[in-house]
Amino acid sequence: MTTLSTIATPEAWMARALVLARRGLYTTDPNPRVGCVLVNGGRRVGEGWHRRAGEPHAEIHALRDAGSAARGATAYVTLEPCSHQGRTGPCTKALIDAGVARVVVAMQDPNPLVAGQGIELLREAGIEVELGLLEEQARALNPGFIARMERRRPFVRLKMAMSLDGRTAMASGESQWITGPAARTEVQRLRARSSAVMTGVESIIFDNSRLTVRAEPLNLAQGEEIATRQPLRVVVDSHLRLPLAAACLREPGRTLIATCSDDAARRATLEQAGAQVLVLACDLHGRVDLGALLDHLAHHENCNEVLLETGATLAGAMLDAELIDEMHLFVAPTLLGGEARPLFALSGMQHMAQQRPLQIDDIRAIGKDWRIIARPRARG
Amino acid sequence: MTTLSTIATPEAWMARALVLARRGLYTTDPNPRVGCVLVNGGRRVGEGWHRRAGEPHAEIHALRDAGSAARGATAYVTLEPCSHQGRTGPCTKALIDAGVARVVVAMQDPNPLVAGQGIELLREAGIEVELGLLEEQARALNPGFIARMERRRPFVRLKMAMSLDGRTAMASGESQWITGPAARTEVQRLRARSSAVMTGVESIIFDNSRLTVRAEPLNLAQGEEIATRQPLRVVVDSHLRLPLAAACLREPGRTLIATCSDDAARRATLEQAGAQVLVLACDLHGRVDLGALLDHLAHHENCNEVLLETGATLAGAMLDAELIDEMHLFVAPTLLGGEARPLFALSGMQHMAQQRPLQIDDIRAIGKDWRIIARPRARG
Repeated sequence: MTTLSTIATPEAWMARALVLARRGLYTTDPNPRVGCVLVNGGRRVGEGWHRRAGEPHAEIHALRDAGSAARGATAYVTLEPCSHQGRTGPCTKALIDAGVARVVVAMQDPNPLVAGQGIELLREAGIEVELGLLEEQARALNPGFIARMERRRPFVRLKMAMSLDGRTAMASGESQWITGPAARTEVQRLRARSSAVMTGVESIIFDNSRLTVRAEPLNLAQGEEIATRQPLRVVVDSHLRLPLAAACLREPGRTLIATCSDDAARRATLEQAGAQVLVLACDLHGRVDLGALLDHLAHHENCNEVLLETGATLAGAMLDAELIDEMHLFVAPTLLGGEARPLFALSGMQHMAQQRPLQIDDIRAIGKDWRIIARPRARG
Repeated sequence: MTTLSTIATPEAWMARALVLARRGLYTTDPNPRVGCVLVNGGRRVGEGWHRRAGEPHAEIHALRDAGSAARGATAYVTLEPCSHQGRTGPCTKALIDAGVARVVVAMQDPNPLVAGQGIELLREAGIEVELGLLEEQARALNPGFIARMERRRPFVRLKMAMSLDGRTAMASGESQWITGPAARTEVQRLRARSSAVMTGVESIIFDNSRLTVRAEPLNLAQGEEIATRQPLRVVVDSHLRLPLAAACLREPGRTLIATCSDDAARRATLEQAGAQVLVLACDLHGRVDLGALLDHLAHHENCNEVLLETGATLAGAMLDAELIDEMHLFVAPTLLGGEARPLFALSGMQHMAQQRPLQIDDIRAIGKDWRIIARPRARG
């Protein structure tokens, strides 16, 4: 029998680096999740992952772990090593100084202004660099960071809890609880990996949701640590109707109200209640320009992944504006009937030809419920 | 290596009998699907299955297949052998006459008036009888026959094609096609195994569906043969609004209009157009009493499985009346929006506590679509 170390392929080492990177899923924000494995003579001599902004990058952890064994080693790293002077110095320099012989990179830095520079520096120093191993898997780890760098906007993930007949609440707005504890744990984890949680003011008025990450329902070993970072709460509130008693205003972390109201007095009152108010342009319907809001979240709040938790109106407007990248639909095995609230209010839907096609990526059981992961497709 | 014959367990022989029985899925109506395997000295010496009403039962086919090898054999049969003088003589007598030593029966005859009599006759003749092997699987083969015998009504299977947001058609009624060819083939097969296909007059007015089994979309080797039997078409039409031009009136097979209208002239006109008209009591809303209709279909039409293909109103009324046993929901990866037609119009749904819980039995991909099989559960 051979051991794992002697038979491992480059793919296996990179897969290990991806596993390490994933450990930062809930903590690296706004940085990307990155992992690194150092291999020398067919053996793993060091590994590391980026834990949180301000702390060392994955490569630095791996080099420290390897010590002198880094000399002549191959580094497997899930993202191109940085070439800029960050808080822990550029990783390219550290790899060169440590005498690493070869670097295998899963994906380039998605920032078009810097992409390739780290690789270039390594090559100039005589290090062999290979690019693109398990690139798809590496990209899947950081959809938000990539969207922000490549498209200058966050990756928007819509979460909805629905009955099998596509209803999110009774006509009265009552909706607690459609889905069970396992689905709610998944939603907590979606919040915890997100830079921001976005909702419409109607959802706050009906559910008074706190929109926070809470340690217990996360059901993770590091739950307490994860819950110390609260994603930015973003409330789309075109006419500043957010109740001052809203629970989300009393929670740790920040609440940003996106509005197009010019009511300065109301704005001051909400600010006194603890919110920040962002005034944006109106769209044609007198509502907040959602594209402008996402631009703001990317440019000024460094938002990578945004979790949209809302009702039919805002969900439909976001879909109409083609601003949703992925949907997580938690489907409860129940029926709420034709009077209950719909999933999406969509505009201009008269004919079958106007339907909105989706790509379904995953369906699986989550406790008593089912989770469907889907993406909007281009219309035929 | 041993061959299948020498290592086969009783469960394997009964499983073979179930496979044989399933060959009659589309043809035995109104009889049950039954299979039989004869085993002697560890070898299969004969097998048979019931093909269609009026032709020999499974046991007779198996005995003919085995010839003299039936003497001393064990018969595995999916349903208790009959003890009555049918068109091919009672199977109990044939088994006794052939010298079969032992009979293993998956399930008793579900008719409470005869259940156990066949087994008793066999035992009286000195044959060892074992009951209950793979009973659950055997019951699953004949849900309609069992419902008719045990509950005096058909097994009602609801089929709906819907978008992921729970919509069956645009507001205009336009619905062709939400689902793809693979799903439509499944629906054709559901029709083909059913005694009757039931719909509401609104569905006919909107879609002018023929409600027939057609050989080609069945996509089965015996498609032509299967399509020679057309399930009874049942149109719930409380006020006799069925258009005389309806396509279903021109198809092979019978169309039964269930009404509570006393408009004798309209009735005569529809009868002249080829329909049969059944006048039933009204319910409290002036609509056909659906329970009475199902009673009629069981008692007077020998309906085992009824496939309900309809819109939100009749589907909701059937669900409200607790007359739906199983649902096959074909879900297309698309969104139709909040203005489109709902899945179920349900009465008295104000609070979450009134939701209608389901048991999901199966979710799987059918071509580009997904099929969810679910059953209504008792409300909390």
